[in-house]
Amino acid sequence: MAASSARAGARARAAAADVRMQGFAERSSLEEAYAWIDAASSAVGPEAVEPGRAVGRVLAASPAIADGEGVRAAEDGYAVRAQDTVGAAPYNPLVLALQDARGGAAPLAPNAAALVVAGSALPPGADAVLAFAAAQAQGGAVEVLAPVAVGAGVERRGEALGTAAKLSPGRPLRPHDVALLAALGVARAEVVRRPRIRLLVAGPKPWAAGPVGDACGPMIAALLARDGAAAEPCAASEGRRGLASALSGAGGCDAVLVIGRSGVGPDDEAPLALADAGELALHGVALRPGGSTGLGRAGRAPVVLLPGDPLACFFGYELLAGRLVRRLGGRDPALPHPTREVELTRKIASMVGFADVCSVRLADAGAEPAGAGEEGGLAAAAAGDGFVVVPAPLEGYPAGARVLVHLFSRG
Amino acid sequence: MAASSARAGARARAAAADVRMQGFAERSSLEEAYAWIDAASSAVGPEAVEPGRAVGRVLAASPAIADGEGVRAAEDGYAVRAQDTVGAAPYNPLVLALQDARGGAAPLAPNAAALVVAGSALPPGADAVLAFAAAQAQGGAVEVLAPVAVGAGVERRGEALGTAAKLSPGRPLRPHDVALLAALGVARAEVVRRPRIRLLVAGPKPWAAGPVGDACGPMIAALLARDGAAAEPCAASEGRRGLASALSGAGGCDAVLVIGRSGVGPDDEAPLALADAGELALHGVALRPGGSTGLGRAGRAPVVLLPGDPLACFFGYELLAGRLVRRLGGRDPALPHPTREVELTRKIASMVGFADVCSVRLADAGAEPAGAGEEGGLAAAAAGDGFVVVPAPLEGYPAGARVLVHLFSRG
Repeated sequence: MAASSARAGARARAAAADVRMQGFAERSSLEEAYAWIDAASSAVGPEAVEPGRAVGRVLAASPAIADGEGVRAAEDGYAVRAQDTVGAAPYNPLVLALQDARGGAAPLAPNAAALVVAGSALPPGADAVLAFAAAQAQGGAVEVLAPVAVGAGVERRGEALGTAAKLSPGRPLRPHDVALLAALGVARAEVVRRPRIRLLVAGPKPWAAGPVGDACGPMIAALLARDGAAAEPCAASEGRRGLASALSGAGGCDAVLVIGRSGVGPDDEAPLALADAGELALHGVALRPGGSTGLGRAGRAPVVLLPGDPLACFFGYELLAGRLVRRLGGRDPALPHPTREVELTRKIASMVGFADVCSVRLADAGAEPAGAGEEGGLAAAAAGDGFVVVPAPLEGYPAGARVLVHLFSRG
Repeated sequence: MAASSARAGARARAAAADVRMQGFAERSSLEEAYAWIDAASSAVGPEAVEPGRAVGRVLAASPAIADGEGVRAAEDGYAVRAQDTVGAAPYNPLVLALQDARGGAAPLAPNAAALVVAGSALPPGADAVLAFAAAQAQGGAVEVLAPVAVGAGVERRGEALGTAAKLSPGRPLRPHDVALLAALGVARAEVVRRPRIRLLVAGPKPWAAGPVGDACGPMIAALLARDGAAAEPCAASEGRRGLASALSGAGGCDAVLVIGRSGVGPDDEAPLALADAGELALHGVALRPGGSTGLGRAGRAPVVLLPGDPLACFFGYELLAGRLVRRLGGRDPALPHPTREVELTRKIASMVGFADVCSVRLADAGAEPAGAGEEGGLAAAAAGDGFVVVPAPLEGYPAGARVLVHLFSRG
């Protein structure tokens, strides 16, 4: 504990130091960065939305559903008592009287059948729905050509209620979950409000080919949308003073992401601006790419400084900022990508002491580094199907190792 | 060939027949329905969008990128000739003259170093970037504390160009693909236009608990968004005549989905309305749930009739309509869900002759049917993590079988 707080103190001093043209004297581990993020963030408040707007949203409270049992037809056909159909066959049709059951209130008489459509209530006494294919209408009667089992073609509201009751806070609502809520008559669902994320683009590097925001902004906005947040892009902020002022004015949002100027170059003033406007808690993470990511606060809003290099920005978001955003949105903070465990067909080399993110290509035989020997940087990621995170203590993975591939988000 | 066209003729007659209160005399196989969909649909035309609007879109043509080689710094540091750093060590620092390289035009002199930031051009002659951590600035000189390899800290535009050239038509652009295009200076990308899908909700069933559109509409709109299409919801159309009129007026869109009234109940008039307005090509598929799905055309627009029961509507979209929508959008027509191959811990029972879709729950030990014995219908799907498709010839899968689970879309 004492060692850990001494280390935290050393890190705070390191964060306060000017790393420009020096490099990082000390870096936080990925786990230390996660601990800071987790302490700095929790789910924002709820809002009530109608089911039609709830797809993809996270439940903040279990849905309020009117209680009450009920039985409805799951398919079109005739509501019957199953026992009245026992022994029926094409060569031995049983005849049931056709009863008008519109409204569903009148009980079904013995040896009677009532026309129902999928979704309608069953008349009391009926316990199954006979499909038209197994019946033959004959004037005011119905010939039953096959027996039907109790419960066939029937849906119990209680079953749907039971499942809906298990839709508990924290669950992201899928398209068919929302249909279930609507079918149960839920008018509004309490969901976690969409976190509002301010996107600040630090001014373009004077020597670089183009403005960093052009390449990173749309990418980060798409990743924010994937993680259920609303991006609030701002105009580029020029210099340390302009950026500090923009950070100070970020009161109304739930978090701020700054793109660019987070590194160790002479013009990398984002960390200084954050220290001016609030607190730079942690700068420099033992992560490659994305190692110049910084964390801190401006007012009550947590702030993530993302590198301006597109690849480093990408993995800085995926490995760090995304966790903060998902926590604010009440979502599972873990990496959201579908995963696949596969065998490496070529080794991955990595630097000890750094969590190394390696883009990989998938083939039938397994996975191989996407960049090795031919492509680097963003090109390797664009050529890849997903990424592997090599933990800091390892030098990499040999060919033949089984690794967990996180598949890149599709859109 | 003769047998298959005789069968197609029989299906056309079956599609023309009124199935209300009779059931389907004949059903198309899933494969026959796919063949109709594939013949009726191809990718809609292209449009040019800026990279910031291209995430999630499908490339219609390889991006046009200005040619030209170039070398840029991948990190902040000093541009050097790698050979000038051989032998450097903390106890044996090598001294290089610090050269001003702003603009990147002046060649790097031998035994010199030039300050660069990530993204800037390297001065001619430089072949590596020395990180600040391995250097020590001393007035007008730089002490090199460690050797650096040729190509370290350097990114070649040619590599990015090579990858970008492999971004071929049909590829959905991921967030970092778009960043690569922007970084290469692409101003506009040719992408497939978003298919415009008219959503018609057939009037509520008079006996049912609520309007079917309320439960199905938002679900289908969310699935259309997942598949890259733009939903154009319309007001409910009342009766056979109202629906036929709405179908006849669907000229401007790329396809129409009709929700509800597709079944064999007395009020299921959607198939008749489609026959009135254009062509009902196929009605009744050997699929459960979703078997009352119909396919046809109104004018030039392909039309899918989806069942009004939410679960049947869901799987009718996932197994049939979604394929049409993805083909119109130039996407892979196959099921878009992430998959996982797992062992069944309980058997799945299914009806021979039908492609049976079974919702399953995943646990560490494997997968089990989500509905078995306790929940049915939509409740089972909401309780599940994904679904398994049992092919028509099988009676199901025994416990212990390895099955492919399609994971439900998250939002």
